[in-house]
Amino acid sequence: MNRRNFNWSLLGAAGATALYGFKPLAQPKLRVNGARLNEHLKALSEFGRNPQGGVSRVAYSEADRQGREYVMGLMRAARLDVSIDAAGNIIGRRQAANNDDSLRPIVFGSHIDSVPEGGNYDGDVGSLGAIEVAQTIAENNVMTRHPLEVVVFQNEEGGLIGSRAMDGELSEKELDLVSRSGKTIREGIKFIGGDPGKLSTVKRAKGSIAAYLELHIEQGGTLEAEKIDIGIVEGIVGINWWDVTIEGFANHAGTTAMNNRQDALLAGAKFIEAVNRVVTSEPGRQVGTVGRIQALPGAPNVIPGKVVLSLELRDLDARKIDMLYQKIRVEADQIARSSKVTFDFKEINVNIPAPTDPKIRALIDKSAKELGLSTKVMPSGAGHDAQDMARLGSVGMIFIPSIGGISHSPKEFSRPQDIENGANVLLGAVMKVDNGNVQ
Amino acid sequence: MNRRNFNWSLLGAAGATALYGFKPLAQPKLRVNGARLNEHLKALSEFGRNPQGGVSRVAYSEADRQGREYVMGLMRAARLDVSIDAAGNIIGRRQAANNDDSLRPIVFGSHIDSVPEGGNYDGDVGSLGAIEVAQTIAENNVMTRHPLEVVVFQNEEGGLIGSRAMDGELSEKELDLVSRSGKTIREGIKFIGGDPGKLSTVKRAKGSIAAYLELHIEQGGTLEAEKIDIGIVEGIVGINWWDVTIEGFANHAGTTAMNNRQDALLAGAKFIEAVNRVVTSEPGRQVGTVGRIQALPGAPNVIPGKVVLSLELRDLDARKIDMLYQKIRVEADQIARSSKVTFDFKEINVNIPAPTDPKIRALIDKSAKELGLSTKVMPSGAGHDAQDMARLGSVGMIFIPSIGGISHSPKEFSRPQDIENGANVLLGAVMKVDNGNVQ
Repeated sequence: MNRRNFNWSLLGAAGATALYGFKPLAQPKLRVNGARLNEHLKALSEFGRNPQGGVSRVAYSEADRQGREYVMGLMRAARLDVSIDAAGNIIGRRQAANNDDSLRPIVFGSHIDSVPEGGNYDGDVGSLGAIEVAQTIAENNVMTRHPLEVVVFQNEEGGLIGSRAMDGELSEKELDLVSRSGKTIREGIKFIGGDPGKLSTVKRAKGSIAAYLELHIEQGGTLEAEKIDIGIVEGIVGINWWDVTIEGFANHAGTTAMNNRQDALLAGAKFIEAVNRVVTSEPGRQVGTVGRIQALPGAPNVIPGKVVLSLELRDLDARKIDMLYQKIRVEADQIARSSKVTFDFKEINVNIPAPTDPKIRALIDKSAKELGLSTKVMPSGAGHDAQDMARLGSVGMIFIPSIGGISHSPKEFSRPQDIENGANVLLGAVMKVDNGNVQ
Repeated sequence: MNRRNFNWSLLGAAGATALYGFKPLAQPKLRVNGARLNEHLKALSEFGRNPQGGVSRVAYSEADRQGREYVMGLMRAARLDVSIDAAGNIIGRRQAANNDDSLRPIVFGSHIDSVPEGGNYDGDVGSLGAIEVAQTIAENNVMTRHPLEVVVFQNEEGGLIGSRAMDGELSEKELDLVSRSGKTIREGIKFIGGDPGKLSTVKRAKGSIAAYLELHIEQGGTLEAEKIDIGIVEGIVGINWWDVTIEGFANHAGTTAMNNRQDALLAGAKFIEAVNRVVTSEPGRQVGTVGRIQALPGAPNVIPGKVVLSLELRDLDARKIDMLYQKIRVEADQIARSSKVTFDFKEINVNIPAPTDPKIRALIDKSAKELGLSTKVMPSGAGHDAQDMARLGSVGMIFIPSIGGISHSPKEFSRPQDIENGANVLLGAVMKVDNGNVQ
């Protein structure tokens, strides 16, 4: 810690105690402007707004570009130095006190792209909440020990593209995949002001950030159901996705006796039940989902000869995912034998679990308690940019309630007060990290 | 029976005994030309032939039209008077002895349209077998008591369109449905030389035919497995088809706990298993199939909120189909409650079961036995034009073995000897019906 260059003149005694924790009770004076934050969220919802509610602001769409322009304006108003990195991430930087660059930046943010026909809270709350935190710090003329970086990652919904560029996980091959906008990722990055030829400049070294903090809606119904204000994320679950192909034999549904069938869909039905049975028979919060299914040839009067379905398993513990998968494979083997079909499993994608830093969890909890808010430690069942930032340093995530647990839907909703609470907890956590509690 | 006008001069004593059954042992002299029949089948397979084998000769396609032209040529060579009725069915008529019109026609035939990527036996064997029978009768200068009508029904595979026009079941509304050819049925009928404005002229009165006989491949594996030459169809099963819609709630696959889901696909899987359990737990030869399924939104990371699947039940007894359906509805109700989803059943199509005439079955059996062929009485699990002809009079169906039970596939195959056997049994049965055994 280098206090020599710290600009004490900008802080009153209360600010100093708030920053350095000498007297934590003095901190409550630094508060975000909740009304302004909610106004900004409303304004952002205009970009890609759907007539029936919600937004379709998929990454690299015109609505995405316009939303990004709006967000960059908010950043500038918050006195952040705005730039777009080669991957297309928006970065708003605030220098440390006395332009001291000796400490690593505290990074916080989220994303503003949406799924098709999505809502106005997933990503938006964390992005605009982060900007509000920066604006509050600026308006209060607080100078921090660490540089601050508000990041709005690009294309979170299409595969954490921006954050994966930052930790070097984004492959050259992926750039040619077509995104939901219809553009390839490479074209999309150019479209939003990045330079896909210079992605290597975006990659940050492990240990190069002091911490990464992200505010987000829960996207589940736990906080609302239990009437808890703030979720403290203990980690982001690992996600393993396989495509499962079941081969039987297509035949005439009228002339093939029941005992003479090799019905791939009947085998698929048994498999879907087995996945549910295996996943729910173990204690814990793991989830398993078959979300996609195709039966071929797909006619009412033909016994399906082939089924392709997706299998997705999520848990905080990669070993548990593997254990569940092995049990499911055993079930599949049994179904294959009894139904005279074959199973083939193809691994499509693996996101390894990303635990958050226990020290940051404690800071988030402390920030919430100081605000009189109740907290609950919980996993994040959804993926977030934070899971990639976890490869660069300590991360923490703050959840606020999602009404009805609905997400990725126009019905997604979080209460204005919860949004304000979440931003204030983020502000408190950023200041506590800056105070050196994690270093 | 009117023997006065019968042209005895065309028949030797053996022919007379063959026709009138005075000395059944003399009949074996009337035989089809099996080599010619198999050559004709080979020639027909050129129309709509697929490079990888089999044919795509869907009704109202150019291949269908050309195949029909070829077939009409064969009919003319068999000395039949060829016409196309207003529905587009091809009818080849042979007058009774002395042009006597006092007896009702004996009708026999099948269809030559195929499913997409179908085989060369379904329909073709019965159509060309019928023409071969007519040619054999003509070449032997046999005159029959009844007029004979060889019918090649149009668009059997697309919903028994031609035969349903003949029994008046084809509705005006159906004419606007788009067939597999891309044309509406109305356009298709015009395309093949019919007149959709005059369909009422095609409808025949109940009791207006002496009998309808159809030779067909089994499309199942029973005859081949049991090494039996000829199947005597006891009836064509009824087919009931419903679309079943299951509504749950689409939600995030990562953030929605297992016990908080309304997974429409999991409910669908339980339903598919229940259908199989209900259908197989009753004695009998009924079949039940879920051949088509769609899960929405259909993403690996979203719990399916809606599933639409097909349910098809077939049996010779309509009451049994109804009993099975009621049991399945009870199962669906239980799944709905336990899975927090709703089920909706929409009846899409009902074909009532069509029993064959026991007297015709006996004639077919006798014909086969005279040829030294083994027989087995069996249901037809597939639908056929015969089921609509059953509304007009007595019907009989003759099955020959399908190798491996494969049908609606390029792999569909019946042995040349079995095809010849089937045509000879058809010939024998036609002559026995003419002999008055059914009247």
